[in-house]
Amino acid sequence: MKKIISLSLLFFAAANLAVAQSFESPNGDLKMEFSLLEDGTPAYKLLFDGEEVIKTSKLGIALKEQEDLLANFEVESTSESTFDEIWKPVWGESKEIKDHHNELEVNLVQKENGRKLILRFRLFNEGLGFRYEFPEQENLVYFVIEDERTQFAMTGDHTAFWIPGDYDSQEYDYTESKLSEIEAKFDNSVQPNASQEQFSKTGVQTSLMMKTEDGLYINLHEAALVEYSLMNLNLDDENMIFESWLTPNAVGNKVYMQTPAVSPWRTIMVSDDARDILASDMNLNLNEPNKLEDTSWIQPVKYIGVWWEMITGKSSWAYTDELPSVKLGDTDYTQTEPNGKHAANTEHVKQYIDFAAEHGFDAVLVEGWNEGWEDWFGQSKDYVFDFVTPYPDFDVEGIQKYAESKGVKMIMHHETSGAIRNYERHLDTAYQFMNKYGYPAVKSGYVGDIIPRGEHHYGQWAINHYLYAVKKAADYKVMVNAHEAVRPTGLRRTYPNLIGNESARGTEFQAFGGSKPNHVTILPFTRLIGGPMDYTPGIFEMDISKLNPDNNSHVNSTIANQLALYVTMYSPLQMAADLPENYMKFPDAFQFIKDVALDWDKSIYLEAEPGDYITVARKAKGTNDWFVGNVNGNDARTSNIKFDFLEKGKDYIATIYSDVEDAHYKTNPQAYEISKYKVNSRSKLSQLSVPGGGYAISIEEAENSKIKDLKKL
Amino acid sequence: MKKIISLSLLFFAAANLAVAQSFESPNGDLKMEFSLLEDGTPAYKLLFDGEEVIKTSKLGIALKEQEDLLANFEVESTSESTFDEIWKPVWGESKEIKDHHNELEVNLVQKENGRKLILRFRLFNEGLGFRYEFPEQENLVYFVIEDERTQFAMTGDHTAFWIPGDYDSQEYDYTESKLSEIEAKFDNSVQPNASQEQFSKTGVQTSLMMKTEDGLYINLHEAALVEYSLMNLNLDDENMIFESWLTPNAVGNKVYMQTPAVSPWRTIMVSDDARDILASDMNLNLNEPNKLEDTSWIQPVKYIGVWWEMITGKSSWAYTDELPSVKLGDTDYTQTEPNGKHAANTEHVKQYIDFAAEHGFDAVLVEGWNEGWEDWFGQSKDYVFDFVTPYPDFDVEGIQKYAESKGVKMIMHHETSGAIRNYERHLDTAYQFMNKYGYPAVKSGYVGDIIPRGEHHYGQWAINHYLYAVKKAADYKVMVNAHEAVRPTGLRRTYPNLIGNESARGTEFQAFGGSKPNHVTILPFTRLIGGPMDYTPGIFEMDISKLNPDNNSHVNSTIANQLALYVTMYSPLQMAADLPENYMKFPDAFQFIKDVALDWDKSIYLEAEPGDYITVARKAKGTNDWFVGNVNGNDARTSNIKFDFLEKGKDYIATIYSDVEDAHYKTNPQAYEISKYKVNSRSKLSQLSVPGGGYAISIEEAENSKIKDLKKL
Repeated sequence: MKKIISLSLLFFAAANLAVAQSFESPNGDLKMEFSLLEDGTPAYKLLFDGEEVIKTSKLGIALKEQEDLLANFEVESTSESTFDEIWKPVWGESKEIKDHHNELEVNLVQKENGRKLILRFRLFNEGLGFRYEFPEQENLVYFVIEDERTQFAMTGDHTAFWIPGDYDSQEYDYTESKLSEIEAKFDNSVQPNASQEQFSKTGVQTSLMMKTEDGLYINLHEAALVEYSLMNLNLDDENMIFESWLTPNAVGNKVYMQTPAVSPWRTIMVSDDARDILASDMNLNLNEPNKLEDTSWIQPVKYIGVWWEMITGKSSWAYTDELPSVKLGDTDYTQTEPNGKHAANTEHVKQYIDFAAEHGFDAVLVEGWNEGWEDWFGQSKDYVFDFVTPYPDFDVEGIQKYAESKGVKMIMHHETSGAIRNYERHLDTAYQFMNKYGYPAVKSGYVGDIIPRGEHHYGQWAINHYLYAVKKAADYKVMVNAHEAVRPTGLRRTYPNLIGNESARGTEFQAFGGSKPNHVTILPFTRLIGGPMDYTPGIFEMDISKLNPDNNSHVNSTIANQLALYVTMYSPLQMAADLPENYMKFPDAFQFIKDVALDWDKSIYLEAEPGDYITVARKAKGTNDWFVGNVNGNDARTSNIKFDFLEKGKDYIATIYSDVEDAHYKTNPQAYEISKYKVNSRSKLSQLSVPGGGYAISIEEAENSKIKDLKKL
Repeated sequence: MKKIISLSLLFFAAANLAVAQSFESPNGDLKMEFSLLEDGTPAYKLLFDGEEVIKTSKLGIALKEQEDLLANFEVESTSESTFDEIWKPVWGESKEIKDHHNELEVNLVQKENGRKLILRFRLFNEGLGFRYEFPEQENLVYFVIEDERTQFAMTGDHTAFWIPGDYDSQEYDYTESKLSEIEAKFDNSVQPNASQEQFSKTGVQTSLMMKTEDGLYINLHEAALVEYSLMNLNLDDENMIFESWLTPNAVGNKVYMQTPAVSPWRTIMVSDDARDILASDMNLNLNEPNKLEDTSWIQPVKYIGVWWEMITGKSSWAYTDELPSVKLGDTDYTQTEPNGKHAANTEHVKQYIDFAAEHGFDAVLVEGWNEGWEDWFGQSKDYVFDFVTPYPDFDVEGIQKYAESKGVKMIMHHETSGAIRNYERHLDTAYQFMNKYGYPAVKSGYVGDIIPRGEHHYGQWAINHYLYAVKKAADYKVMVNAHEAVRPTGLRRTYPNLIGNESARGTEFQAFGGSKPNHVTILPFTRLIGGPMDYTPGIFEMDISKLNPDNNSHVNSTIANQLALYVTMYSPLQMAADLPENYMKFPDAFQFIKDVALDWDKSIYLEAEPGDYITVARKAKGTNDWFVGNVNGNDARTSNIKFDFLEKGKDYIATIYSDVEDAHYKTNPQAYEISKYKVNSRSKLSQLSVPGGGYAISIEEAENSKIKDLKKL
């Protein structure tokens, strides 16, 4: 499907002169100009609708102990091509994805040493992707990247939704500020974490969402992060230039490369409509196609878990409080006094299985099932878990048989505590154990500093591991949902068994002091650009002290907002995170969680403004049913949507789960109402969402008998 | 077998006062005094024959982010015990080993925080071993060792045989100097290596051999290095105090500990007879007993290998010279031009198998058999080998069948290039591959810096790996001979499948410029204290340019010296390292290599002076045959030995392989003579050994018919 339009060989007449070549996106909205600066530094700029959106920005790589790949380049040749294809993801927001882009390949050479560097630019209608390519060549075989010097020169003091740049954590609340305010607001934007390391007071993470004074939306991120280290951005706030800041290893090196090699794609999305950012498939399109031959075993999963009760402190992962520390193999748990709070016990797990079966959940996750939780992180302990030895009160086989009899799957949990080598030592055994007992998916965790110390969660060494674990999981037909791992960059396309990641501030923080009420209006613009998040929504009891009197945290969200998350926060893996008893207090609201789909034919982004609101409609895969979600920010707002996405001429029943007027994330979070209407493609809705609120709608194709008493919307 | 002699509770009346308790070795030669200094610092001193040999030396551990375990101690209790036992090693220098020692246990407490520390001292007739023990306790659970501050205070400016302290390499020539000269001679004592890092100009390695002006021999080392980092020694050369210097990890931490835990044993051997140092089993006795239930598969091995031709540069490990670098899986070797120097090809390997079968060798090692050698180290390349994919010209199955038909085993080779994680990822597969093709042993290698960078060969993280690989090998009944790994500390007792290590300057350096001619008169006093070395002796062609015209290195040794090494350098794994064609030039000398035993009932150290000479007699296991080896240093010397180790009343035939008078390691290294004599327990020998020379004797019980024409010695 690739068509080469033109091939220009050595068309740049002289070196050391500013030269330029431009190309456009398929729809002509975006134009990119490549140029060589006078010293032979490659640069690019990006125009939207004829106006500069990224000013002339330098490109290049500083090397260790070798001459830099920064300047003294000449253009050897360029070629342009266009690409237009539709491909089908194994799962996703839509059943078909269009990859339509134009490409400019710039072949550079440093004349004095003959080293070659290729810059490959791809313009999609909604953005630019580009990467460095290092072809196999005599004078560049192995090299160490000291710094990648990719610039993103902003045109002004934009508003940004940012979290602190960090080598180990993304679990931060977003700060909305002008670029010029980042440094002043930096320290207050850092919340403590089990592992974290910031590098600059103007360092921020991607995906970075910005808005210009002219109302343009700009998003910076990366795609296909493989065998490289993660890119943060550091802002020169005098000139408003972001520069790439890679995560170092223990000795300060950024990346070890061997040609032929490529960098990840650096991506810039631009639109005057924020919905285009959410709707973009550019990140996926910049990743390699699916590499797994058989994907029949990869299925979206709706699950509950023995989890929230530990997160809130009501229960414990640990079996006993008696042990100062654990030595796996030496510690005999049967000789210890149980603490009476260990939730992962057979009887209790069976209650969850019963609940899952009764309410149609696919699976039950159980954390704290295996020996070692008494001292599970923060100690540089290498052999912290073996991933196959249950606590005395967890009957693996009995639970498996019980779950099977109820038609429910069990989800495995592998906490690694950052001890990557230890996890890899046990990986085969652990996956074999999962196969034996029928666990189709694993939630893995990387809490605490990486072992060996000095390595970072987002460094090349750890990033290599995460993908290793995913690939090996595929060998065992295991789906992976990795927490505290590196943020996703679209690799789900290539390895669709990577069904989830955390890599952001998830719902758990609602039990650790709370997140900002508009957090979920930002995440889809930032964290979710790279792939789905196991956000674990569905909290109905916002007063955590009702679960644990010692925990005064408050969930800054209304119930209606929680329901909407199942639609707004796309993921093939969706948890109903609250306790069964809390769901049973609101069975009518819970019905939405039971009904909502996990996989989609189509997604339509109805309204969007980062920090303020997002409204999404999605059509459930292989059905005519739709689900709509609206999440709202700090201020009350009336959402106005049209149902013109529905099939013309058909009637549907819409069940709307919405905030009542005096609902509020803080003072009245459980105040929702449910109403049913008859709707069709001409229907419109004007719906209030309160601060931290929202609404969810399930829309099913109507049978006539059911809709006769319903009002028309 | 442990008998507690006395138990003294709280016998120290008051804290913060110098107090002392002493105990003696079983023979009374050694006496150790433990004391608490005024500030509560524990200390010890050691006396030999009533004279101080180690002056009062402090003990303690500096911790990171916790109060140190250095001072403010009180003695809570002490207990003394004695131990006398004989145990049998799976293989070794003698069939039975006596462990006779007295023990003093000192229970210390820091009163203000209640933290407990145990010092356990063991006095053997030839030395002292002691270690730190950290019992399970509330106020000391996890801790990070910033520095171990174990002192060894010398009584004077002794002569030392030392190599530079280093975190990654021991492959140095020894320097003989006064302690006060170490700093001045340090830089000249550092030879380049693929991975090395020194830390101090007065830093040296153990085992450190010294001699006092009074003729006392002192040896400092450690035993049972498990879950800790390696100890170097740093000399305060004003006060002549050595202090322990542990190998740090990437962030500078020395050891991560979890109670209950113990340090390795720190050992001090003392004698007025150098032979006692060589004869000592103290290092083994301080290790845990054998943990392997079935050891039937562990057998000493005499082998040849496709190796020396690559070391000398005559042949290559790599298959082709065409590839700038290799990407395993992507690189298709069948599309490359072979370089014509690749030694590990089926036909050539079969020639080695033929030679091994003809001359009674157990096995053939082949290096360079697997894909990846074109860029095998120095590049921070993680996926450097997969350990199962042969080059196109190496027919694994065909070779295996051929070897089997000839009664010869193949020895596997696993070079890791320091990429520890990559090796562990492939370890099961690699050992399974060995099992499938009948390889009973593996030579593993760790050339180049450890990956991830920042970790060291001798740090806790890598040390954990080496033992992991040995234990996992035992699961597969695989024997391990690890090169560039941490030096041995007696772990062969606990895991007798660890049949060899390099961890010193081996014979390969004779092809890299040569080693000092007296090198092998020092190694048994230093490197070999911890366990056997795969020294790879048996070089007959000392002029390396005869193998490779581009290599002018000279082997600084006579042929007779090379033969003696099979006896003086004890190892259950012995290589005949030279090329078959070189052995065929000297078939009569080669006969000794064919005859010499690998496992022993008894070893008797006849003469010894570090740097000058070593003469050893060993009785082959389960026979009446003896082998004697003498290696000589820089100056010609006449060795005088008695044969009183022979069984009284029996006649034997002694075949003596010795230097001729004008032989010399440099100018006339191949000049040897072979003579046969009738000997019995009253025989004596006065034998010249030239510089870098020596002699070897095989002694077999005589049949009368054979000895009638022999002269009596």
